Amino acid sequence: MDHLSPCPANSPPLTPLIFLERAATVYGDTPSIFYDNNISFTWSQTYRRSLLIASSLSSLGIQRGHVVSILSPNTPAMYELQFAVPMSGAILNNINIRLDPRTLSLLLHHSESKLLFVDVQSISLTLNALSLFPKNSKTPLLILIADDTVAPLQNPPPALDFVDTYEGLVAKGDPSFKWVRPNSEWDPITLNYTSGTTSAPKGVVHSHRGTFIMSLDSLINWSVQNQPVYLWTLPIFHSNGWSFPWGMAAVGGVNVCTRRIDAPTIYHAIDTHGVTHLCAAPVVLNMLVNHNRNKPLKNPVHILTGGSPPPAVVLSKTEAIGFVVTHGYGMTEVCGVVISCAWKNKWNKFPLTERAKLKARQGVRTVAMTEVDVVDGVTGASVKHDGLTAGEIVVRGACVMLGYLKDQKATLSCMQENGWLYTGDIGVIHEDGYLEIKDRSKDVIITGGENVSSVEVEAVLYTHPAVSDVAVVARPDDFWGETPCAFVALKSGLEKKPTEKQIMEFCRESLPHFMVPKTVVFLEELPRTSTGKVQKYVLRKDAQAMGPIAARASRM
Amino acid sequence: MDHLSPCPANSPPLTPLIFLERAATVYGDTPSIFYDNNISFTWSQTYRRSLLIASSLSSLGIQRGHVVSILSPNTPAMYELQFAVPMSGAILNNINIRLDPRTLSLLLHHSESKLLFVDVQSISLTLNALSLFPKNSKTPLLILIADDTVAPLQNPPPALDFVDTYEGLVAKGDPSFKWVRPNSEWDPITLNYTSGTTSAPKGVVHSHRGTFIMSLDSLINWSVQNQPVYLWTLPIFHSNGWSFPWGMAAVGGVNVCTRRIDAPTIYHAIDTHGVTHLCAAPVVLNMLVNHNRNKPLKNPVHILTGGSPPPAVVLSKTEAIGFVVTHGYGMTEVCGVVISCAWKNKWNKFPLTERAKLKARQGVRTVAMTEVDVVDGVTGASVKHDGLTAGEIVVRGACVMLGYLKDQKATLSCMQENGWLYTGDIGVIHEDGYLEIKDRSKDVIITGGENVSSVEVEAVLYTHPAVSDVAVVARPDDFWGETPCAFVALKSGLEKKPTEKQIMEFCRESLPHFMVPKTVVFLEELPRTSTGKVQKYVLRKDAQAMGPIAARASRM
Repeated sequence: MDHLSPCPANSPPLTPLIFLERAATVYGDTPSIFYDNNISFTWSQTYRRSLLIASSLSSLGIQRGHVVSILSPNTPAMYELQFAVPMSGAILNNINIRLDPRTLSLLLHHSESKLLFVDVQSISLTLNALSLFPKNSKTPLLILIADDTVAPLQNPPPALDFVDTYEGLVAKGDPSFKWVRPNSEWDPITLNYTSGTTSAPKGVVHSHRGTFIMSLDSLINWSVQNQPVYLWTLPIFHSNGWSFPWGMAAVGGVNVCTRRIDAPTIYHAIDTHGVTHLCAAPVVLNMLVNHNRNKPLKNPVHILTGGSPPPAVVLSKTEAIGFVVTHGYGMTEVCGVVISCAWKNKWNKFPLTERAKLKARQGVRTVAMTEVDVVDGVTGASVKHDGLTAGEIVVRGACVMLGYLKDQKATLSCMQENGWLYTGDIGVIHEDGYLEIKDRSKDVIITGGENVSSVEVEAVLYTHPAVSDVAVVARPDDFWGETPCAFVALKSGLEKKPTEKQIMEFCRESLPHFMVPKTVVFLEELPRTSTGKVQKYVLRKDAQAMGPIAARASRM
Repeated sequence: MDHLSPCPANSPPLTPLIFLERAATVYGDTPSIFYDNNISFTWSQTYRRSLLIASSLSSLGIQRGHVVSILSPNTPAMYELQFAVPMSGAILNNINIRLDPRTLSLLLHHSESKLLFVDVQSISLTLNALSLFPKNSKTPLLILIADDTVAPLQNPPPALDFVDTYEGLVAKGDPSFKWVRPNSEWDPITLNYTSGTTSAPKGVVHSHRGTFIMSLDSLINWSVQNQPVYLWTLPIFHSNGWSFPWGMAAVGGVNVCTRRIDAPTIYHAIDTHGVTHLCAAPVVLNMLVNHNRNKPLKNPVHILTGGSPPPAVVLSKTEAIGFVVTHGYGMTEVCGVVISCAWKNKWNKFPLTERAKLKARQGVRTVAMTEVDVVDGVTGASVKHDGLTAGEIVVRGACVMLGYLKDQKATLSCMQENGWLYTGDIGVIHEDGYLEIKDRSKDVIITGGENVSSVEVEAVLYTHPAVSDVAVVARPDDFWGETPCAFVALKSGLEKKPTEKQIMEFCRESLPHFMVPKTVVFLEELPRTSTGKVQKYVLRKDAQAMGPIAARASRM
């Protein structure tokens, strides 16, 4: 079979950008985007506008391999740029709008970003970040994303040297522009900085190939039919919206974009647009559950949740409202959901709480991932499928990143010669082959030689009727080394608030003694990243600052 | 981004074989296969049995890159072998069971097949084929697929030297066998000989990568949900069942296998198993329409049809029964459906016949295909999107074959340096970007300088109330060069049969004069390939044998 090798007809580079052209033909006159104030677009408009932006980027000197950054919430411009930037040949760098100026400045400098799209509400942040740029170093060109649907934060806005506006680029674009196809499917398409729950941000680079396969895999995994109505609750800058910006073009969905992400906005969008699907971190589920809604959902709404382990009680309450929850696991390094709690029809007969417990497990690899395992930290061997033996979760497959930008050391330390990406997450595999996360490796609490999973302690605390949000970290302990320390936010409007001691006693009813928090701290609100993850490193610092529990107190 | 290149963690070879392992975990105790006489298997059994067969093949000396052939209808063994053969490292060669001994002998010799699985009803065919093998050339090892559900064709069956039975290999397999993963995703996984409607069979080779992407693409294109009930009406040996053997493992479907494929069997399977999906050539739709069924379908059944252009009237009659038809286009060279009439919701408001006319068009590329076009035969430029200008259909994308086995000339003649696979099919593109096949290039009738699409003439003939099946080919004509010649099968039980002249007059009502058949021949049944395609080369020979129409007769 000597002559049977790849040739131009069978090996054009895989890229998710081809979904958009097709959507313009198939779904040309149906809506692609709904946004606040009755703004809407069709798929042929979205294709045309993306092409025009790509053309204008090219006219501004953007070339293949340049980094183009965006600071924007889920607006139509943000959606279009998921196509427009790579269609110009550039690498798409979605940036978290809630970063501090110092971090933003570092990222822009580290990525050598050539151009930055700035949403009108991120002008001050940008100004402050650019003022921190090293002297004489080149700053990116700036394009303003104006937006009539919001009042300016300052009037007049701070003076920033914008070379043009987003709509200016649309107007100046050449509709006959040929979008830039990748030379190789391994060419980079995106650069995402990790949210930094555990360490300094790292720049994750994904390929056209990886995002193409992730897009298809995610649609199949979630059984997404053609022409869904998809609500953008998940920020697109979070891991490129788990690949769904491209996936929605593949199935001709409607993208309902909203600037605000809160329970009233979400329920309003569901009622107005007939939303069928949305992605959200567990904290958003918690928001939906705690909101006082007095009418049931007209139709089931499918939620894909992930980003952090969802407590079973939150899952069961969400489903009780009428949402159908799928639970997935991913991380910036894999560009979307690669492990998912694939549902078995036979589980439908179990009671709601039992179902939620099963669903709180992360599950099995998605269909396009090659392998997933949990391995012993020392021997590297697969752990027993007993639901008890913990190890590190490792994955391999086409959706794994190319690596970290300019950080070969970090790349090699998590992607090893043996072909696994080491996730840093600690889990077990149950007898039925379903995997469950027990903790981030940095979040494990080691108390008197016992490993305590902070997630397990949190799951118990979430069942307390007065608790709305919770996070457990290690606090130094003179006797035990470390002990669990719980930060707890209580529900508003409680008649009687529980005391610290009552919270501990509550835990003692369902946990072994060594897992019960020895410290309970009440907070108004837990510190979270913009993607809904608790910033445990902040709480760990707080717990450190409390100082160690004295040996005597601890032993009682 | 120097160090950011493929590494073992992000570039394990793509292969559809990984779907089966996962199905064993997720759908382990749910049915994978139902077969005649209440035989059934679960997904964990199907995985285990495939692994055991792969192990036994390995013990018999089968190695990476060897060709292993199968002669079988859609039995459980046939389904399992779609995994088991490539899991042994071998190349899967599904062979049409309705071939003549001479062709079968040629294919087995051409492919250097090392081992042949023989269904009990193909023993005589195999015996005859092997007797035609060149002297001293090595024949394949033979494995018998016994089957209690059918009576032997001859008793005792002819003496063939089987080294074992299928169940013997299952029994001898080693359950700890590590299945052989491809070294590269470009490694061949299948070898299919073309059905030979237009020329001598050629051996199409597909890669692990191509079939992996085709499997996912087909599920998305058809919006297949998890756990469908899939009826095997399409023979698996036809283009590997359009990739659905692997696709069903990805979504944990039930494979309903039947040895017979006729209307009573299909309706019985639908009623018994709650079939949700099936694939079938248009001739099968015709069969379903003409069958006298007196009760409606309980639930909608999704049909994916393709293989030859379906007449609009057949589509509308099929949908009137309650089937939901999706129309796709593919060929052996692309391992499944790569162009499909993606449905627009706004078309739902049209009357049934209008809908069928829209649906009879082949449509647009599926989401994973890179590009599809219709190009002028001389200039190679894209044709106008006017629904009139015809050209050759060309495609490029990951689902295009590696090439033809041992036939570099044929490979290069259809896959050219410019990156297109030339399909040999003639089509137009409508204003809305949807493509429609007008004919195989060899089937175009050139009459007085006008190109006549045989498909268009056939579509009109199908609307005649007495016609059940039809094919139009060119007949030599002394004056016009060629004129259309219609071969017509009439419905059974007609009170009054139409005459040849009446058929021509019927055509004259809706076709220009030059497109009206000048010859009409009534046949009991049209010659078809096992895959439901009319053997036009047979009819062309018949039309040739009639001799040219004399100049005078033709001009009247």
